Amino acid sequence: MNDLFLRAARGADTDRAPVWLMRQAGRHLPEYRELKRKHSFWQLARTPELAAEVTLQPVRRYGMDAAILFQDIMTPLPAMGAEVAFTPGPTLERPIRSDADLATLRVPQQDEIAPFVAEAIRLLRRELEVPLIGFAGAPLTLATYLVEGAGSKEYPTFRGLLRARPDLAHALLELLTETSIRYARAQVAAGAQAFQLFDSWAGLHDEATYRTFGQPYARRVLQALGGDGAGPSSVPRLYIAVGAGHLLDAFAELPIEVLSLDWRTPLDTSRRRLAGRVPALQGNLDPADLLGPAGTVREATLRVLRAGLGGAHLFNLGHGMLPQVDPARVEELVDTVRGFGRRSGDAEARA
Amino acid sequence: MNDLFLRAARGADTDRAPVWLMRQAGRHLPEYRELKRKHSFWQLARTPELAAEVTLQPVRRYGMDAAILFQDIMTPLPAMGAEVAFTPGPTLERPIRSDADLATLRVPQQDEIAPFVAEAIRLLRRELEVPLIGFAGAPLTLATYLVEGAGSKEYPTFRGLLRARPDLAHALLELLTETSIRYARAQVAAGAQAFQLFDSWAGLHDEATYRTFGQPYARRVLQALGGDGAGPSSVPRLYIAVGAGHLLDAFAELPIEVLSLDWRTPLDTSRRRLAGRVPALQGNLDPADLLGPAGTVREATLRVLRAGLGGAHLFNLGHGMLPQVDPARVEELVDTVRGFGRRSGDAEARA
Repeated sequence: MNDLFLRAARGADTDRAPVWLMRQAGRHLPEYRELKRKHSFWQLARTPELAAEVTLQPVRRYGMDAAILFQDIMTPLPAMGAEVAFTPGPTLERPIRSDADLATLRVPQQDEIAPFVAEAIRLLRRELEVPLIGFAGAPLTLATYLVEGAGSKEYPTFRGLLRARPDLAHALLELLTETSIRYARAQVAAGAQAFQLFDSWAGLHDEATYRTFGQPYARRVLQALGGDGAGPSSVPRLYIAVGAGHLLDAFAELPIEVLSLDWRTPLDTSRRRLAGRVPALQGNLDPADLLGPAGTVREATLRVLRAGLGGAHLFNLGHGMLPQVDPARVEELVDTVRGFGRRSGDAEARA
Repeated sequence: MNDLFLRAARGADTDRAPVWLMRQAGRHLPEYRELKRKHSFWQLARTPELAAEVTLQPVRRYGMDAAILFQDIMTPLPAMGAEVAFTPGPTLERPIRSDADLATLRVPQQDEIAPFVAEAIRLLRRELEVPLIGFAGAPLTLATYLVEGAGSKEYPTFRGLLRARPDLAHALLELLTETSIRYARAQVAAGAQAFQLFDSWAGLHDEATYRTFGQPYARRVLQALGGDGAGPSSVPRLYIAVGAGHLLDAFAELPIEVLSLDWRTPLDTSRRRLAGRVPALQGNLDPADLLGPAGTVREATLRVLRAGLGGAHLFNLGHGMLPQVDPARVEELVDTVRGFGRRSGDAEARA
């Protein structure tokens, strides 16, 4: 068992950085596109054997130090009563914008939310020789999609609802929090060895708004993995938001072991600013750097590796992999991370 | 002539903050929608009498302290050979992604770019009793649209091209810079009394990428308003980017009189960090705050006004007005700004 990822995620300043990439499974891989020709996204996600196969594809091809379950942050929503189509981005059949809309949602039992996820996790644990990361969308980010109804640049409907109907927003966030807690616990109970909470759109909000509608609900989901909410978590907890450098101090208050930074928030200055409040940092290569010609990925990767020195660092992208990426560039990235010794002197010599 | 805006834009710590709002003319106004039923966007923009009328509408209704020319940042592109449709967001008929695409673009003469803009400015100067702000899109932001071809959440095509073809990106930015310089000078020559450069999507990039592809070109456009590039500008220069708190130090190096901040980048902490490097700050109410119920806009506006104390402050939104806004909320905003005395003691008493 390769436990490099788990050691770094618990705060160890490891000899080399573990590497996995957000959205490492998916459209950039020819073997995924092959499966996708025969199955819809929901078929892949809801058939445990297929979800496990897609999860394994990048681990086999690249030798990643961790696997992340192939699912979408929308996975738990249908069991709540919210149907989601992928067109190809997630689209809600009936956005939640009124009390009547809210009344159509319910909190499912833990084993009702996504039984196919638990089954996929069990299958994967038999196969994998690296840790398996489970994940969920944070309540604020799920609410963003549920209200807006689809992806958007600035989510004006949702941001307007926070002002016009804060009571409705909080009621929706409550339902999502309770569901997310159960969904996260189901994943860990089935065998997930780490858990990443995706608060992708938290960065849309100023700090006061995030502290009102985002942070308290994210905290509850993360605390629920600590058993009684006070004890240490059974698995390391990772948290990511995008375009959210202005919220760093609020993130430092979350019960997390790893904070994942996007490509605009430098690892080195953030580590200084966080001053030990978060055990490990993850990130943060610009996903667009993988679109450059051969050779340029190595330089960009080395810059991130150097900025990650001085504490626990899990190498990753600053956001999800773009579908246009050539797998040869991902190989260049992974080779570079594996060849970069993080011990002083060694790191200098190679960099 | 109400010169409050111009004094604050030159760095004066005025008794009250001048107020104007990005996208104050446009879809949130019933009188605009009335005109829009009869004319396309391009008809409104390209007919000087209509463009002037739309520019005047919010000044008449709200008593704004400045008018901003009704146009789009796309306005100069057709004269370069790039046709733009509004569907309703800007869409390029032929995105620029290759040398052959680039060869279809040219730098127009100053009086060819948008003669209807100069004419609208002359009409407006006869009518207006407040300063008229001209504007243009910054080269980086225009290139973002030209390459991507339409609005997008993260502009992957453009960000990929910066890595795959930096030479092509720089060649495109050169053409856009030269055109923008001529377009900006044409506006000032016709009578624009201030100039705002919109670098809306600069915040997509990390600081190194912005310093390579954004800052040098923005600087050249802004410097061109200083005559020989070294002298003081004939008009105050304003600069805005969105989601760009991580670029504050790079912005401080631009030859500008006013930096406009978005709603996630607080005025007070930014003023401290800028330490006098920019004479005035503008912003930064969250546009979504105008979607709240009556009464809540006053509180949100007061918070921004208080954060703006301690130096020159031009009240504005943190980004453009949303089309859903009720004009009554804008009145509440304007009344609050007008009633807030910025002299010590007075400000406290009212806040």
